[in-house]
Amino acid sequence: MLSVRGVKVTPIAFPDPPLLNSAGVHEPWALRAVLQVFAGDLVGLGETYGDIAHLSLLGAAAASLDGLDIYDLSGLSQRIAAAIGTVDAPDRHGLTGDSTAAKTLARVVSAFEVALLDLQGQAIGRPVHDLLGGKVRDRVPFSAYLFYKWAGHPGASPDAWGPALDPAGIVAQARSMIDRYGFESIKLKGGVFPPAEEIDAIRALRDAFPSLPLRLDPNAAWTPATSIKVAAETSGLLEYLEDPTGGLAGMAEVAALAPMPLATNMCVVAFADLPEAVRRGSVQIVLADHHYWGGLRASAELAAICRTWGLGVSMHSNSHLGISLAAMTHLAASTPFLTYAVDTHTPWQSGVDVVTAPLEISGGAATVPDTPGLGVTLDQDALARLHENWLHCGIRERDDTSYRQRFEPDYVKRRPRW
Amino acid sequence: MLSVRGVKVTPIAFPDPPLLNSAGVHEPWALRAVLQVFAGDLVGLGETYGDIAHLSLLGAAAASLDGLDIYDLSGLSQRIAAAIGTVDAPDRHGLTGDSTAAKTLARVVSAFEVALLDLQGQAIGRPVHDLLGGKVRDRVPFSAYLFYKWAGHPGASPDAWGPALDPAGIVAQARSMIDRYGFESIKLKGGVFPPAEEIDAIRALRDAFPSLPLRLDPNAAWTPATSIKVAAETSGLLEYLEDPTGGLAGMAEVAALAPMPLATNMCVVAFADLPEAVRRGSVQIVLADHHYWGGLRASAELAAICRTWGLGVSMHSNSHLGISLAAMTHLAASTPFLTYAVDTHTPWQSGVDVVTAPLEISGGAATVPDTPGLGVTLDQDALARLHENWLHCGIRERDDTSYRQRFEPDYVKRRPRW
Ligand SMILES: [Mg+2]
Ligand SMILES: [Mg+2]
Repeated sequence: MLSVRGVKVTPIAFPDPPLLNSAGVHEPWALRAVLQVFAGDLVGLGETYGDIAHLSLLGAAAASLDGLDIYDLSGLSQRIAAAIGTVDAPDRHGLTGDSTAAKTLARVVSAFEVALLDLQGQAIGRPVHDLLGGKVRDRVPFSAYLFYKWAGHPGASPDAWGPALDPAGIVAQARSMIDRYGFESIKLKGGVFPPAEEIDAIRALRDAFPSLPLRLDPNAAWTPATSIKVAAETSGLLEYLEDPTGGLAGMAEVAALAPMPLATNMCVVAFADLPEAVRRGSVQIVLADHHYWGGLRASAELAAICRTWGLGVSMHSNSHLGISLAAMTHLAASTPFLTYAVDTHTPWQSGVDVVTAPLEISGGAATVPDTPGLGVTLDQDALARLHENWLHCGIRERDDTSYRQRFEPDYVKRRPRW
Repeated sequence: MLSVRGVKVTPIAFPDPPLLNSAGVHEPWALRAVLQVFAGDLVGLGETYGDIAHLSLLGAAAASLDGLDIYDLSGLSQRIAAAIGTVDAPDRHGLTGDSTAAKTLARVVSAFEVALLDLQGQAIGRPVHDLLGGKVRDRVPFSAYLFYKWAGHPGASPDAWGPALDPAGIVAQARSMIDRYGFESIKLKGGVFPPAEEIDAIRALRDAFPSLPLRLDPNAAWTPATSIKVAAETSGLLEYLEDPTGGLAGMAEVAALAPMPLATNMCVVAFADLPEAVRRGSVQIVLADHHYWGGLRASAELAAICRTWGLGVSMHSNSHLGISLAAMTHLAASTPFLTYAVDTHTPWQSGVDVVTAPLEISGGAATVPDTPGLGVTLDQDALARLHENWLHCGIRERDDTSYRQRFEPDYVKRRPRW
């Protein structure tokens, strides 16, 4: 029997471009936590959020796992629930919906679950996707994830991506991202400019890439009435419209009239949200995210629910590195009805990673690893460097709003804004 | 990599007492099929229905599995779907609800899935429950499954259980079953006598066993109106009322007025039934059965759906032997919200088995095996004897109705009857 003999949680920070969204703008450093779970001679890896409240829960959880059998995922949840108690640690940005104690627990369990599955896979010489029922595809398609952005962080030189503040800038960004990664579908993070400008950007993308599916995600920046108007105006242009407005009631109001399906990673973010979402018909596609649904197995349960109710499944992404990318790829590989290309921030973190050989996206997809476990190896030097960043960056909690206010004092986060 | 190098499907028959139900009466022989799936030096076991149409599908499936990686459960479903095509092989008795092509496929896949999980567990030295997320309990409670029955099969001597055709007979049966196995809850298979007589039997059980939860399952023998009346008359007596009437609409009508929760293994028998069942509020408890839901992992998905919608979960049983009992026990062990004692026919097949050391039920529960795989070993001599039974018994399809008609020519199966 292989049991946990120690856990190391390392907070890290890595450079992040000034990407705009409905909560503000990304700070110069994105936070993340890397988990190493030790069992025998093996180390299982996990990657999760790096906000300080979450870090403290990770620490409490880590201290409770000594001697845990690496197969005992039920015991994992029980121990962590006991260790952290009933606590709600919401994100400040709210970009993944409302927080609850159950979601907070799921967020903590998730990173450890991935690490235990990595250990299980290594112990038996099988890839993680085999522990999830076996892969149904050899390649996982990802989408180009476009952002409105400033040229560079204020006070710094422009970054390699340059500015994207209008349709031409967005098209140029898409072109360079697609040239490099071969993405075959495109998502635009909206909720930044008045809807008419974002519709123009979508039209420009349609002209520039006539055959690629397009998505728009304003992160609940619009009222239901605005959402219904935008949906009508983008009829025929969008593969799906993501979280145009907030809440299950508002989304249902939009869904009833929108000509395209609605997707969400904001109003259906935990199992408890599903009954009402189904009853109201609030969404047609759920964007799974193993980082807050409770892990890879919980995400597979979510996918089974979506299959049963005829909902589509795709995958949400936050700024992340190669452990998360590998976990997402294994999950997507073993999810039969994952019918849309998966979101990833990978291009925005290009060149920086915490694993020695990150999965590569080319031709718009990553090849599913068949090596044991997650199939990625921690780069200890990189981990040390990224931890140094964390020590010095001064950021302890993601706060897109305050950062934007530093340069635009009148900026307020408002959802809906339009 | 361990791959399937052969499959052996052995039809068997074992003695079955004349148990009465809403479709007729059990024949002298119950049919079953035992699967042996060979990989390397290991053999994985499965147990499933033995009806001739199902046997022929099992054969077609078995022939398609050579070289299949034992971890490739997705490939298993795909290969079997391709091998058997779109075919619907309904049961004649209808005691597990309507049949469809999807349910037929799930029924075939299931037995092989269990055998592959048995192989995986053996290959890595871990019990099957570890492959399902880890056990949440060390003991799985089962319920006493009472049947109205004849003294013996016509023309044969009375069997050891003797007759049970009135409340006193049912109480005596319960007493002898509970004395022997220690069951702490009781289920009566009804739908045999007019409801008033079955209510009397329930009252007699309540008097004889004041503290044990009781259930009544008439297998859809009643109209909604009768069901509502019986529900009112048994208020406070039943833990749950199982399939009083047929269909999601009728069950919803009853559920709206019944003072106790309704359970089912007849109107929610496949994933496709769940959306309507939830929408109508047809049932409060789903009785999972891995033999037709598609296997142990599919049953775990069903349990996740029930957890999400606040439905209870318990487990249905047909006449079975020790491979099925082990599989049910592993599944129940790893299902967190399985909140009711599990049905089993084990007492009715006492002394006959196809494994060398069947799990034992005592104190009303079975201890969850922690040995590799399912934790049971095929008894080749017993298998040969039970196969001989099959060769000579003359039964090729379970048909409770025709058997009863042989002795009661006027008997007709009618649902609803009252
Ligand atoms: Mg989103
Ligand atoms: Mg039943």
